[in-house]
Amino acid sequence: MRAVDLIRRKRDSGEHTPEEIHQLITAYTCGDIPDYQMSAWLMAVVLRGMSRAETAALTEAMLQSGRVLDFSDMAGRKVDKHSTGGVGDKTSLIIAPIVAAGGLKVPMISGRGLGHSGGTLDKLESIPGFNVNLSLVEFRRVLETCGCGLIGQTAEIAPADKKIYALRDVTGTVESSSLICASIMSKKLAEGIDALVLDVKTGSGAFMKNIEDAVNLAELLVETGKRMGKKVVALLTDMNQPLGRTAGNAMEVVESIDALAGGGPADLRELCLELAAWMFLLGERVKTVEEGKKLSSDLIASGKAREKFREIVALQGGDAAVVDDPRRLVRARQTSDVVASTAGYVGSIQCEQLGVAGVVLGGGREKKEDKIDPAVGLVFHKRIGDGVEPGEPLCTLHYNSDARLSEARGLVETAYRIEPEKPKTLPPLIYQVIGA
Amino acid sequence: MRAVDLIRRKRDSGEHTPEEIHQLITAYTCGDIPDYQMSAWLMAVVLRGMSRAETAALTEAMLQSGRVLDFSDMAGRKVDKHSTGGVGDKTSLIIAPIVAAGGLKVPMISGRGLGHSGGTLDKLESIPGFNVNLSLVEFRRVLETCGCGLIGQTAEIAPADKKIYALRDVTGTVESSSLICASIMSKKLAEGIDALVLDVKTGSGAFMKNIEDAVNLAELLVETGKRMGKKVVALLTDMNQPLGRTAGNAMEVVESIDALAGGGPADLRELCLELAAWMFLLGERVKTVEEGKKLSSDLIASGKAREKFREIVALQGGDAAVVDDPRRLVRARQTSDVVASTAGYVGSIQCEQLGVAGVVLGGGREKKEDKIDPAVGLVFHKRIGDGVEPGEPLCTLHYNSDARLSEARGLVETAYRIEPEKPKTLPPLIYQVIGA
Repeated sequence: MRAVDLIRRKRDSGEHTPEEIHQLITAYTCGDIPDYQMSAWLMAVVLRGMSRAETAALTEAMLQSGRVLDFSDMAGRKVDKHSTGGVGDKTSLIIAPIVAAGGLKVPMISGRGLGHSGGTLDKLESIPGFNVNLSLVEFRRVLETCGCGLIGQTAEIAPADKKIYALRDVTGTVESSSLICASIMSKKLAEGIDALVLDVKTGSGAFMKNIEDAVNLAELLVETGKRMGKKVVALLTDMNQPLGRTAGNAMEVVESIDALAGGGPADLRELCLELAAWMFLLGERVKTVEEGKKLSSDLIASGKAREKFREIVALQGGDAAVVDDPRRLVRARQTSDVVASTAGYVGSIQCEQLGVAGVVLGGGREKKEDKIDPAVGLVFHKRIGDGVEPGEPLCTLHYNSDARLSEARGLVETAYRIEPEKPKTLPPLIYQVIGA
Repeated sequence: MRAVDLIRRKRDSGEHTPEEIHQLITAYTCGDIPDYQMSAWLMAVVLRGMSRAETAALTEAMLQSGRVLDFSDMAGRKVDKHSTGGVGDKTSLIIAPIVAAGGLKVPMISGRGLGHSGGTLDKLESIPGFNVNLSLVEFRRVLETCGCGLIGQTAEIAPADKKIYALRDVTGTVESSSLICASIMSKKLAEGIDALVLDVKTGSGAFMKNIEDAVNLAELLVETGKRMGKKVVALLTDMNQPLGRTAGNAMEVVESIDALAGGGPADLRELCLELAAWMFLLGERVKTVEEGKKLSSDLIASGKAREKFREIVALQGGDAAVVDDPRRLVRARQTSDVVASTAGYVGSIQCEQLGVAGVVLGGGREKKEDKIDPAVGLVFHKRIGDGVEPGEPLCTLHYNSDARLSEARGLVETAYRIEPEKPKTLPPLIYQVIGA
């Protein structure tokens, strides 16, 4: 097999055999195929697509590129949640403690920021000392001790995915349902879980801009997961505007702590309760989604979820005092408001542009080697349907360097569309549930 | 500008501004953009295409990435020829000495093997000592002394093209008329020439498989060249079968020396006379193509062309004795015949497969870092329309390692299609001339 022949075959809309995919992934993982060939193949995949059979083979090849964990000797059902990513999506930081406080095990292997969307690991690392790079032995110990662990991919878990994920981010090859499915499911199936709740985002800030693509991805994910013997549901949720009020690593940790303390924005709280409820349902802790929501709400009200988060932070080496005093987190030195130029209502938001603005400020990566600045980010003052007056702030940029401030401001300014009439309908938080 | 945004724009069929293209090429050339981003962008270009304006901007950006030579103080018109590449195409080695012997200057900057097609530099380097890496000062001296110089791109000439060309070869991104046009014209326009004859190949062994694509490329090349004030014509020639009897670096040098001595296969000789004639015409050395062919033929018959080749080889540090004794060139240790399994006629040839077979034997590169073996190659015994008997050799593989011999044989075996009836028409050598 010559890599260039596989690239050319996919470029010309050909189909690969499972063996070819396995060889390609194995050779790339061990360094026999360089990044520049893989990125050309990935672009061909994005533009030419993959069959269901190819997608399954890719998932399998990436899963088998590393170790598959086994926690079957540990009491309690193991459940996890995965989001396809968006702007301001910090639900993992809130749900994982809730569900662990409710008695299930949450062995969560998360990712970093990808394209315009944030990543759980980057957010957690804004907590001083928080170590997302636990060994699998340490991960097991943390999971046994407090019911939850939040780590990045270790070298042992789906190393193929780790390498490909970083490459896709910087080569414009994120938007492919097959690549997204293989990336998500190879990691998640390696976690040793019994059940998985998927949060598939759709809208202007999601990788899947339109609902049909999102439904297709959700179905692909659910099908692949069920084929591997797991309980899986997918919630199709809205990403036409940021989730919650902030996007930025340290800022989102603050907002998550607020939500765990019973506060935080309504949309963030509501989605977390729904997702946690489904995890409780698939984990056989409750009989209905409503019962799961009630349980989740109670765990917040009693302080148990917040206490669980403190426990996790401490066990993973982080400064647990931030849970009581979020001002211990790093903050940007300067702020800049983007204001409305006319009166009216927020009609729509180009949400992806807000995510890109955060990257431009240094909160995400443009090249995979880039360092990120955990302090920078955006605060959102207006949601779709909100009325605005001229000069009223729409969004505040928190930044440390003004080198690219005007670029970021330009992205934010053109992201908000102000209309004279209040929109007749607002986007729902959840569109539908697939696979239930 | 973020490179990933440009990649995404092209992926989504967007058009770049000339400034964006200039920035992208400049940043890639100086190493600010890594190979893996460029290869993703190149694949997006191959699959989404470029407008005429983008192609012109790309050519300009690549030309301006380095020095543009000026030989206007040197007597005699400067003309060059460029072929889009194929299997067994060694015309440069024959034409350059003919045209220089005829009094014109030929400052030829050539390339290496690309994909399945061979490259002039690789062929020349099979002559012991031949140095294709002259400095521009040495190149000028050689050109002044003997009327012709054959070098590779120096670091000063279109460095952007040099880097992109190597990358395209190994990432399945060769087949784009815009990328091909920019690559060819950025180098050729940097040569300080007055006129250029293009040999645009079409057929199963060409990058442009069908004649419409080849016509489009020829028109694009001629338009770009004329816009820059050069005399340009393009000959559309056949590549449904190898040119001449051999493909392989040292083997093609032997065949070229035969042709310069008045021998060699008829198709090779005829095409060389045509191309040289057009160079003489555009270089204002003759008044008609017929007169140019006569002049070329005379220069071969008189031995002057062969003598000129000897002079070039010596001036560029090569072993000039090979011109009289080609056995001084390296030869492969082993041979293997591919024979006809049935009686009939050669109906068609998958010519690209023959080129790939040569690469598999080690005569070309699969990765840009690969070393090539100058000795290996193929000898072709049958052309389209030739009758064959069962067991009669179609092609002989010359090789040094049997590690991948069966792979190469498989490619050759399936390349020849034997039919019971003699084909009614044979492919012409030249289809048409564009831009005359």
